[in-house]
Amino acid sequence: MHIGFIGLGKMGYNLVVNLLRHKHTVVGYDINQSLVDAIKTEGAEGVTALADLYNALPEKRVLWLMIPAGPLVDTVIEQLLPLVQPGDVIIDGGNSHYQDSVRRHAYLKEKGVGFLDCGTSGGISGALNGACTMVGGDPDVIEPLHEVFRDISVEDGYLYTGPAGSGHFVKMVHNGIEYGMMQSIAEGFEVLQKSQFPLDFEAVAKMWNHGSVIRSWLMELTENAFRKDAKLDEIKGRMFSSGEGKWTLETALDLGVPTPVIALSLLMRYRSLQDDTFSGKVVAALRNEFGGHAVAKN
Amino acid sequence: MHIGFIGLGKMGYNLVVNLLRHKHTVVGYDINQSLVDAIKTEGAEGVTALADLYNALPEKRVLWLMIPAGPLVDTVIEQLLPLVQPGDVIIDGGNSHYQDSVRRHAYLKEKGVGFLDCGTSGGISGALNGACTMVGGDPDVIEPLHEVFRDISVEDGYLYTGPAGSGHFVKMVHNGIEYGMMQSIAEGFEVLQKSQFPLDFEAVAKMWNHGSVIRSWLMELTENAFRKDAKLDEIKGRMFSSGEGKWTLETALDLGVPTPVIALSLLMRYRSLQDDTFSGKVVAALRNEFGGHAVAKN
Repeated sequence: MHIGFIGLGKMGYNLVVNLLRHKHTVVGYDINQSLVDAIKTEGAEGVTALADLYNALPEKRVLWLMIPAGPLVDTVIEQLLPLVQPGDVIIDGGNSHYQDSVRRHAYLKEKGVGFLDCGTSGGISGALNGACTMVGGDPDVIEPLHEVFRDISVEDGYLYTGPAGSGHFVKMVHNGIEYGMMQSIAEGFEVLQKSQFPLDFEAVAKMWNHGSVIRSWLMELTENAFRKDAKLDEIKGRMFSSGEGKWTLETALDLGVPTPVIALSLLMRYRSLQDDTFSGKVVAALRNEFGGHAVAKN
Repeated sequence: MHIGFIGLGKMGYNLVVNLLRHKHTVVGYDINQSLVDAIKTEGAEGVTALADLYNALPEKRVLWLMIPAGPLVDTVIEQLLPLVQPGDVIIDGGNSHYQDSVRRHAYLKEKGVGFLDCGTSGGISGALNGACTMVGGDPDVIEPLHEVFRDISVEDGYLYTGPAGSGHFVKMVHNGIEYGMMQSIAEGFEVLQKSQFPLDFEAVAKMWNHGSVIRSWLMELTENAFRKDAKLDEIKGRMFSSGEGKWTLETALDLGVPTPVIALSLLMRYRSLQDDTFSGKVVAALRNEFGGHAVAKN
C-alpha cells in the first residue's frame, strides 16, 4: 500500500522503516529536514510540505499521523482539511485521548473522510521490528488496512478493537495497567534493597524471568536496567509521566470503577517529582501542635 | 542424588516427578497412603512413616519438606530431630515466613544439621516441568545441592540468594509484586468492562501478549481465563490470599518502605471478601448526619 506518514520522530521513523521492510511505499513528512533526509536513505520518499505529501499519494489516500497527542493533532487535521477528499483515511497512531478520537472521527466522517485511532505499544524496538497495535474505527474504513496493521505488528499483535475511539481507549488502559505493574515491581525491589540481605538485583530479576509467576517484559527491562547500573546509583527516582495513567484514572473515576493501584501508581509518580511536600509540612505542624512532636526545620 | 521428600501434595508430587525425570532417587513420604501409592507408580519409593523415610536414605541425608507453612514445619522438624545426624540437610521448599527460616536455620545449625530455605515459584506446571527456585542458606550446605536445584528449575530459573532466610524472603517479595501486578491487570480489565466499548477481553489480552509493554505470564493466564469464560460470569470476584502479600506489607512497614500498590492490592483482596462493610455504614451514617443525605436501608 502507498502511505503518507506524518511525523518522523523515534516512533514514526521506525514505523516507516518497518512499513518499507514490508514492501509498502511510504512518503514521509516532517518539519525537520534532517529527519526527512534520513528517511530517504531508508527508501522512502521525503517531503517537508503537507501539500507535497498529499500530491505524492494515489487516490483514497492514507495519511498516518505519528505526532504528539493534543492540540497538534487537531492543527494537522485542519491543515489537511483543504486537501483531503471523500474516501481518504487519516490514521492517528499517537497516544491521543480516546474522547478526542471519538470527536475527530465524527468530525471527519461528516466530510466523508475516514478516521482510525491506532494505539501503538512495544516501544521503539517494537515500532521497528514488530509493534502491538490496537485500532478502532468504522469497519469499512479499516477493511483495506487490516493487512498493513498486521504487517507492522508482531504475529497476533494487532487487534481491531471496534468502534472509533476504542483503539486509543484500549491503549490508554494498557498504559494504566503498565503504571501499576511498574510500581509493583519497583516497590518489591525497594523492599529487597532495604532488607538485611545483600542481594544481587540483576540476578534476582533474571531468575524471576525464568519460570516465575511474575516473568514479564517489564521484568526483563528491569533485569537490563540492573545489568547497566547494579544499584541504579546513576539515576534519580524521578518518575515522569505522559498522561495516559492520568486519563485511565480520570476515566475510572467517571465510570465509578475503583482502581486504587492505578491511582496510587500515578500519585507516587507525582510524589517523586516533589523534593518536599506541603502536605508533609501540614502533618508535621499538626503533630507539633497537639503532641509537641519534633519537626524538621528548614 | 538420593532425596527424602516430605509432603506429596500438588506441588510436592510434581516436584518429585520432576526430580525422578532428572535421574534422582526419591523416597516420598506423606500421611496420605493414596498419595504414597501414586508416587510409587512414578518410580519413587514411598513410605508413610518418617523413620522409614530416614532409614531409606544414605548418610548426609537430604530431607525436602513441601508442606503448608506455619507450625506444621516446626512440628515435622521436631519429629525429625530424634532421627537426624550432623551433616544431614533439611530443605524447606514451602512458603514459610523468612523469619521462621532464619530461626529454624539457627536452631538446626546448633545441632549440626543444615537448613536451606527454598522459595518455589511457577505453580504446579512449573513444579512438574521446570520451576523457579530461590534458595538461601550456608554456602557449604548448598554446595552439593546446586545441581539438584538447577535440575528442577527452568534454565536460569535457579538462584542461590545468599544467607539463610533470603530464599523465602525473595519469594515473599515475588508474591508481593505478583499481588500488585494482578490487581493492576484486574483494574484495567474492569475499566474496559465498564466502558462504552463492546470489547472482547480474550482478544485484548491475547493482543497485549504479543508485542505490548505489559506482555507477561500473568497476562497469558488472563487470556486463558477469558478463553474459558468470556466475561467471567461463572465466578465471583472473591480474592483469597495465603499470607505472602500480607508478609510483604508487614516487612515493608517494618523497613519503612512506602509500598502503596502492594498494600492496596492486599486491602482490595480483604474488601472482596466482605459483602458489606462496617466502615461503609459509618460513612453513610455520617453523610446522613451532617447533610441529610440518603442512606441505603438494610
